[in-house]
Amino acid sequence: MTVATTERLFNFSAGPAVLPLPVLQQVQQELLCLPGAGASILEISHRGPAFEPILAEAQANLKKLLGVGDDWQVLFLQGGATTQFSMVPMNFLTPGKSADYILCGAWSKKAIAEARKVGAVNVVWDGSSEKFTRMPRQSEMRATSGTIYMHTTSNETIEGVCFAEDPDLGEVPVVCDTSSDFLSRPLDMSRYSFIYAGAQKNVGPAGCTLVVARKEFLARAGGEKLPVMLEYKTHVENDSMYNTPPTFAIYVINLVLRWLLNDVGGLEAMHRRNLEKSKLLYNAIDGSEGYYRGHARSDSRSLMNVTFRLPSEELEKKFAKEAEARKLDGLKGHRSVGGMRASIYNAFPIEGVQALVTFMDEFRKANG
Amino acid sequence: MTVATTERLFNFSAGPAVLPLPVLQQVQQELLCLPGAGASILEISHRGPAFEPILAEAQANLKKLLGVGDDWQVLFLQGGATTQFSMVPMNFLTPGKSADYILCGAWSKKAIAEARKVGAVNVVWDGSSEKFTRMPRQSEMRATSGTIYMHTTSNETIEGVCFAEDPDLGEVPVVCDTSSDFLSRPLDMSRYSFIYAGAQKNVGPAGCTLVVARKEFLARAGGEKLPVMLEYKTHVENDSMYNTPPTFAIYVINLVLRWLLNDVGGLEAMHRRNLEKSKLLYNAIDGSEGYYRGHARSDSRSLMNVTFRLPSEELEKKFAKEAEARKLDGLKGHRSVGGMRASIYNAFPIEGVQALVTFMDEFRKANG
Repeated sequence: MTVATTERLFNFSAGPAVLPLPVLQQVQQELLCLPGAGASILEISHRGPAFEPILAEAQANLKKLLGVGDDWQVLFLQGGATTQFSMVPMNFLTPGKSADYILCGAWSKKAIAEARKVGAVNVVWDGSSEKFTRMPRQSEMRATSGTIYMHTTSNETIEGVCFAEDPDLGEVPVVCDTSSDFLSRPLDMSRYSFIYAGAQKNVGPAGCTLVVARKEFLARAGGEKLPVMLEYKTHVENDSMYNTPPTFAIYVINLVLRWLLNDVGGLEAMHRRNLEKSKLLYNAIDGSEGYYRGHARSDSRSLMNVTFRLPSEELEKKFAKEAEARKLDGLKGHRSVGGMRASIYNAFPIEGVQALVTFMDEFRKANG
Repeated sequence: MTVATTERLFNFSAGPAVLPLPVLQQVQQELLCLPGAGASILEISHRGPAFEPILAEAQANLKKLLGVGDDWQVLFLQGGATTQFSMVPMNFLTPGKSADYILCGAWSKKAIAEARKVGAVNVVWDGSSEKFTRMPRQSEMRATSGTIYMHTTSNETIEGVCFAEDPDLGEVPVVCDTSSDFLSRPLDMSRYSFIYAGAQKNVGPAGCTLVVARKEFLARAGGEKLPVMLEYKTHVENDSMYNTPPTFAIYVINLVLRWLLNDVGGLEAMHRRNLEKSKLLYNAIDGSEGYYRGHARSDSRSLMNVTFRLPSEELEKKFAKEAEARKLDGLKGHRSVGGMRASIYNAFPIEGVQALVTFMDEFRKANG
């Protein structure tokens, strides 16, 4: 008989993923009654005096972290990045127009499939022949004449590849799915017009999608007879409150944003932590004399999702099993890439990376 | 200076709304670590061994409560009932077909507006000339020849009207928005083909929409080039896991379903409690010699949302203010109806209704 324990493991899950412990502790403490609200955050009206300041603070905290002003709009939506895959073209890729897409992994592939249902799509770079082991270089991203936007994915969760720097497309509006590295580093927001992210990887629980977009770009949204929930206009005009928003998720996200601002000290500081953690792990791979083989090319390595293979699938199974016994949880890679994936998001502690690196070394010696 | 207190009030919010205290206590207790999962429910993968049994149990509990078998499908979606207003016609109201709608309040009006974007809609009953004070009688709901479905709303949250019994449309598939009285009473499921509900009124936190539908009816879903997240097929084929579902909301919903099954004793028992609570309140209105005037006609009175007016708007403001001082929170009615609205969902305690009734009596004597 196994006894259900309440011991927290090192959680390498790709999403939903590890959250900051102080955030979880505050959620727990306030769960029966949000101070001053007379009820749990799970029970209060989104139009009441307790929730509205939370929404406003979350918007302000997000803009502060990203360093954007009042010419940018923050939206809290539902349906995950996958719903954005549809909403972006439905609102912007109107008849007679075309949009450019970069195909750099499993998620951008899905974004392209949804856009193709709506209108003309140009895939301007395709990493599939290289098995999505790298991101395009700046010189490889050439916008098509007249394109309405360029769609990119900042970090491909499954393959573990990310842009080394923010793409520069000049006057072409860049739309970016930042789901799996959102707020892991500063972004040069001057290069983007519209970014979006499912919360459940780096900023909160599942069930909320964040959009940060230039108001000027959002004003271009068109589309005929769109479902009201899929129109950006609906959410802009109603400040994310057309219908009931995911109130609890927004509350937790706001606590995570506070943690980033006050405990961590902003995105530069967060980036340093993430560089340190990922470097430890990539050094372990690079120093393994080929025993561990990283999936991503070194110029495109993700700081969030570290993907690597072992000499055989048999050893990979053994590795995953023994890792679990060491309380290193969720290391099995996505079936499409195979091998291992260590997701080490913002809230993942360096102690967990150290424990993994120690284990990798021991495993290699025992099974070399 | 006001001090933020942690005292729970009687919460008459129309949604998000009161949840069972034992459910909140369990959520609080397990928040840092779901037993056996090694992490918080907020942090675990939806594809992992800890979440999948929760999803399966929630589906099974819901089917058990509603008394339906394996010919019915349970889905957990996002975007609220408003997204269902679009998804239902986009999937079923295909070109050349028409659908019937009953217009019985603010929410069915929105459902109709979304359906009209998609195809031909017949409004077979319109309660607007009677200011939505009642639901249609059985004899007033005549389906149009060839209609693909009849859409109804079981309980209109804003006006506080509900069906006294489940509508019987014979062979015509009935699609019903049950958001604000879902699981408040047994449903004769033989009369429905497809029911849906936003969780945040009676079964859980905001951010999850429940669909319970006949598989045979779902199989008729069509529609060309629909956004993948708006196709029922996507969610049926992937058992609500095409992308990351709102895991935390599903976990809380499952605890509420357990509470209904084990603590309350099922929907018959829940219905008795709701009848008792609402009767107390309607008796207070009816016994007030016209001081309190119910919005709904007596044959259409909601058990969930009790709407009533006072002799003047001035007195209504005074009533709301003094009620708050008595810890009776959230009684202000929707601006479109005015007056008061006491939402007394499943988890609302009878003690709160008794406190309101006492206050109503005292207020009338003091301000009669």
